[in-house]
Amino acid sequence: MSPLDQLWQNKLPQARVPLIAVGPYSAVTLTALSDLAAEGLIRPVLLGDRVKIRHALSALSHAESLLSGQIIDSERPMEDAAVLISHYPDSALMKGDIHSDVFLRGIVAAKLVKPGRLMSHLAVFETNEKRPLFITDPSIFINPDVAQRIKITANAIDTLQRLGYDEIRVAVLSSVETASESIPSSMEARAIAAHFANLERIFVDGPLSLDLAVSAEAARTKASRSEVAGRADVLVVPNLDAGNMLCKGLNFLAAMPSANLIAGTVCPVVFSSRAAGREERKQTIRLALSGRRDTLRA
Amino acid sequence: MSPLDQLWQNKLPQARVPLIAVGPYSAVTLTALSDLAAEGLIRPVLLGDRVKIRHALSALSHAESLLSGQIIDSERPMEDAAVLISHYPDSALMKGDIHSDVFLRGIVAAKLVKPGRLMSHLAVFETNEKRPLFITDPSIFINPDVAQRIKITANAIDTLQRLGYDEIRVAVLSSVETASESIPSSMEARAIAAHFANLERIFVDGPLSLDLAVSAEAARTKASRSEVAGRADVLVVPNLDAGNMLCKGLNFLAAMPSANLIAGTVCPVVFSSRAAGREERKQTIRLALSGRRDTLRA
Repeated sequence: MSPLDQLWQNKLPQARVPLIAVGPYSAVTLTALSDLAAEGLIRPVLLGDRVKIRHALSALSHAESLLSGQIIDSERPMEDAAVLISHYPDSALMKGDIHSDVFLRGIVAAKLVKPGRLMSHLAVFETNEKRPLFITDPSIFINPDVAQRIKITANAIDTLQRLGYDEIRVAVLSSVETASESIPSSMEARAIAAHFANLERIFVDGPLSLDLAVSAEAARTKASRSEVAGRADVLVVPNLDAGNMLCKGLNFLAAMPSANLIAGTVCPVVFSSRAAGREERKQTIRLALSGRRDTLRA
Repeated sequence: MSPLDQLWQNKLPQARVPLIAVGPYSAVTLTALSDLAAEGLIRPVLLGDRVKIRHALSALSHAESLLSGQIIDSERPMEDAAVLISHYPDSALMKGDIHSDVFLRGIVAAKLVKPGRLMSHLAVFETNEKRPLFITDPSIFINPDVAQRIKITANAIDTLQRLGYDEIRVAVLSSVETASESIPSSMEARAIAAHFANLERIFVDGPLSLDLAVSAEAARTKASRSEVAGRADVLVVPNLDAGNMLCKGLNFLAAMPSANLIAGTVCPVVFSSRAAGREERKQTIRLALSGRRDTLRA
């Protein structure tokens, strides 16, 4: 079983989750929805331009029979999705084939972000060492300050708790592992780590370099005493450029399996990139829906 | 043959290159030197604390016989290396087991940087697609401005020309592929690319996102007309944090084979990280010594 499969195993909801898919216009989106509907995990609600949805469905005979009864025609699907979510609090939201910007702005406009929190993005990868590794935030914030990254870090911790982690190790990354005025991200990492000091079974350390965060050998070589070094579960990146290039490097140069989560919202949000294939989309849906305490299976 | 092997194949110098190794105190450094001395590529000069060098050599019987005659005792090896290089302009310089900062500052102090240029670092990776991919600069500059990154880009172009590239494709990276005031790296990338417009067989384009730079599929999906999209040879990163995390992600999470070059200096400089193994060090030496036009083999 893959590391990403282990994350959702035994944590899927018992009842079908109504999943409101905004703009499901591509074969890859529709087949992922159809697969998971057939498995009994979701009840898809296809929201958007009915003509475009029908056109895409018509090319997929199996999906058509399963999904064609669940189309809601909408000219402003993000606005209408917000209304649906407010009426059906047990439902979940999914980005179909629309721009991320439109989708994310719609979530904020609809007040689907938890009070006092920020909405943030976590990518999760299966590394060569076969552990799941979360990276946050690689796509929403351009240059988040320390206060924002504290909230981004809290979202990551919430997400891992929801997924059943007993202990959580968070590395706040910089290019170096000693705070230095000449490298601003290192000073900021120290401040973020200090905010999370003295928690039970949650270890947040920084600044850590990426090698020290994830490589047990680097941790030994550098004689690190950090609880996080060599076995980080979460990497908190300093800004968009660093997170974007790290995640795209793993995706497009190393072809590393991944999924993408949104945290900090009142309902589960499924957030696949345009480049995601069918399996990645299904993993993302499963992970987004996993571990809601009130509806746990078995 | 691996993509990195292809880079140096038929481009190694005909005569042995005197290679001045500064602080060669580890088994991995000494065995790499011994291997390449046995192959006839280099004549190693071991410069540093004689006691430490002898101690390390004594554990390596084969290397000892090959290398023990070539030790120069030095208390200030970077200063002494600079004197040697000025006397023997055909020699090359190598970082042994000393801190990168000390080594790089020594190069600048010794005026080994070419007039009007900057010294920069290029990492080169074998990606899953089996092409060599250069990334610059992942370790020397913290937050280089446009003028500095133009020089860093020029160094990369020089290096690829020396390695025999007929055409060179350079992607100046940002998180997005459209220049936008809200993402400074995208505006800077456009300025850097504009500086290199209208060259023959050298294509520099930016801003490009990493997926668009390296993925032929992303280039098709996004209908890009860029000469660089989907087949970049070189990625120019915006700053230290982004370059460091991208390269360390490929090294430590994806275990991707790599080597490391220094460009912009008057002599070849071999620059392996402390974490580099024997093969990576040998590749780095071969690449640093490849393609010096006056001494080409065959």
